[in-house]
Amino acid sequence: MKLDRLAIRGARLSDRLSELAKIGAIEGGGCCRLALTDEDRQGRDLVVSWMKALGLAVTVDRIGNVVGVRSGRTAGAPVMVGSHIDTVRTGGRYDGNLGVLAGLEVVEALNEADVVTEKPLAVAFFTNEEGARFAPDMMGSAVHQGALALDAALAAVGIDGESVGACLERIGYAGPEPVGTMRAAAYVELHIEQGPVLEREGVQIGAVTGVQGISWAELTVKGVSCHAGTTPMSMRHDAGYAAAEIACFVRRLAHKIGGAQVGTVGFLELAPNLVNVVANRARLTVDLRHTDDGVLRLAERETAAFLDELAAREGVEIERRSLARFAPVDFAAEMIAMVEEEARALGLSTMRMPSGAGHDAQMFAPHCPTGMIFVPSHKGLSHNVAEYTAPEQLEAGANVLLNVVRRLAG
Amino acid sequence: MKLDRLAIRGARLSDRLSELAKIGAIEGGGCCRLALTDEDRQGRDLVVSWMKALGLAVTVDRIGNVVGVRSGRTAGAPVMVGSHIDTVRTGGRYDGNLGVLAGLEVVEALNEADVVTEKPLAVAFFTNEEGARFAPDMMGSAVHQGALALDAALAAVGIDGESVGACLERIGYAGPEPVGTMRAAAYVELHIEQGPVLEREGVQIGAVTGVQGISWAELTVKGVSCHAGTTPMSMRHDAGYAAAEIACFVRRLAHKIGGAQVGTVGFLELAPNLVNVVANRARLTVDLRHTDDGVLRLAERETAAFLDELAAREGVEIERRSLARFAPVDFAAEMIAMVEEEARALGLSTMRMPSGAGHDAQMFAPHCPTGMIFVPSHKGLSHNVAEYTAPEQLEAGANVLLNVVRRLAG
Repeated sequence: MKLDRLAIRGARLSDRLSELAKIGAIEGGGCCRLALTDEDRQGRDLVVSWMKALGLAVTVDRIGNVVGVRSGRTAGAPVMVGSHIDTVRTGGRYDGNLGVLAGLEVVEALNEADVVTEKPLAVAFFTNEEGARFAPDMMGSAVHQGALALDAALAAVGIDGESVGACLERIGYAGPEPVGTMRAAAYVELHIEQGPVLEREGVQIGAVTGVQGISWAELTVKGVSCHAGTTPMSMRHDAGYAAAEIACFVRRLAHKIGGAQVGTVGFLELAPNLVNVVANRARLTVDLRHTDDGVLRLAERETAAFLDELAAREGVEIERRSLARFAPVDFAAEMIAMVEEEARALGLSTMRMPSGAGHDAQMFAPHCPTGMIFVPSHKGLSHNVAEYTAPEQLEAGANVLLNVVRRLAG
Repeated sequence: MKLDRLAIRGARLSDRLSELAKIGAIEGGGCCRLALTDEDRQGRDLVVSWMKALGLAVTVDRIGNVVGVRSGRTAGAPVMVGSHIDTVRTGGRYDGNLGVLAGLEVVEALNEADVVTEKPLAVAFFTNEEGARFAPDMMGSAVHQGALALDAALAAVGIDGESVGACLERIGYAGPEPVGTMRAAAYVELHIEQGPVLEREGVQIGAVTGVQGISWAELTVKGVSCHAGTTPMSMRHDAGYAAAEIACFVRRLAHKIGGAQVGTVGFLELAPNLVNVVANRARLTVDLRHTDDGVLRLAERETAAFLDELAAREGVEIERRSLARFAPVDFAAEMIAMVEEEARALGLSTMRMPSGAGHDAQMFAPHCPTGMIFVPSHKGLSHNVAEYTAPEQLEAGANVLLNVVRRLAG
């Protein structure tokens, strides 16, 4: 019965999370470890040293993805667990890191119990998941799974003017391994929810059904500047007012569609941005997400129609540029069920939910059975130094990961 | 009949405007001559040299206001004309400068005709009318007329950290003259409209009835940041959305009150201002103006009630800080009529209108008969390098000024 009593060690997981969080630590307990910076290199070196200490065979591919493999009784495609260790500028210590370090716990628990699985096991971390320095996000996993060309990714230039290729060379992670040669038999990712739903519902484990479709647009409104005191309301072409109307429309649209629909204007800038001058220019973003691509397309169409109507009514010009468009991703039914079953077997409460954020897992979903496990995020905070998941919640999630991996790897 | 044929010279006025516009000239034909900078000093020196060449007795007071006096047949309070020569950062060449240089034309026309008026005549330019570097605006005229204490004005610190007092010393315009010793028998200011009404109506001269009351508030909305993908709409406290609602409310309010009511949100900033993060903070300004203080107070009350309702509904906090509050100013009935009469006598079309912008004249209105003459602004543009009034329109306005001054000065 040795296998049945296998469990990860929560304290060790928390210790590794703390150790990794020291690299790029920022005020308030968070992390700034932007992709392919010196901090990212230090973080990579640390995780690689842990992988090697656990006996994993570590390879680095040409886009800098790092994979540590634990042999199985048979050769062939491994069961892969993974995530990322890069963070946003004001990141927390759990986003991404949890999935990688919980993978190490799975390996260590198996090592301690001298368990050899049928299939090999792989723990991976992927380059530039966050997209906070280089676009697009989920870059490493996208290249790994053939959704993005290697050359295009290497040529991407970051917010500071350096290219991905040059940064990989500089930090020593331009690996020799061709991308995508290692296929996964299955892929499982443990991640913090990054939203408030599990905590609100009082549920310990989310069995993730898929990833919402994402539609990001940047809008530029061009109006006419004039004096805020001397220009009658009827003679205005106010780019700032038009931008505000768009933000209010997005809110109304999300409520009208309801259900899983969310819509956000998180970025908004006016020019000249002065108290007594009607704005001649506004730049804003519209972020629309839904689990159903048909509904998402409807939301996009309704937004476009509103923009046309608004532009005509206010005598402004509205330019639209797509910043990102990902179709919704559905995870395999058997993987969703397996997460639920293993959670329940451990006595944990569980619910099915979509992911509102993008994850490396979505790049694997078209190619192999893929699943995700969510643990609660306190107050739903993420991309925030106050990001927090309690140690027992981390441990519970990692144990579900362990048991799902055991079932998949045999 | 010599007096009746007196007229200013339009070409000379335009030449002086061009000459002054070379100082601080910027791309597109505009001017950047922020108050009490080296450019302002050069502009002051040039205008003072012109004053002296015309035989005016020039004095500089302790807040840097410059007054050139032409003696009359009797001593006593002069009829004063004036405005300002400081500009905003992206200013035009007419705003303010026109009123000062047209005053010089009035003097030169009288000099050329050897006319000595009964009362003395004074041409003034006042320090920091724009308020683009130091708050408050209309500083020099406010101190001159006792609406602002000299010490408070001298202590005001600019956007670049320098104080008014230090800048006046540096540029050599900390004059010896005590402020406010020279009272005006009457005050007349020629100014561009800075709005589109005269051009739209096809009218040459605006007889200004007064200055709209101005209410400026800065609002800070405090919400909660969260992930734009993972946070259900019902769990948001979105400072960006609340700010947009306020901007839309201000527009609705102005339309509801109608008439002279204007309302503008020209400044709006979000934090963290990212496409996929619900804003936790918004800062915006609300600019409300009306000619009737009772209506303006009503607009302020309705705005305050809306903010309370919005804050409760969205679960956000809204802080309000007053940036400026000027009650409406009414000009003397006889001065409004005099501008109309003198315009008509010159065969110019005229209409009564309030000023939507603040002017030095409003500081004089409580203390002496005060009037203003508006000439059209092409497309209503002002505080803009494209600010434009045609030479013949400038000349027409200056001739109205001349004739009003002749009537007042006897």
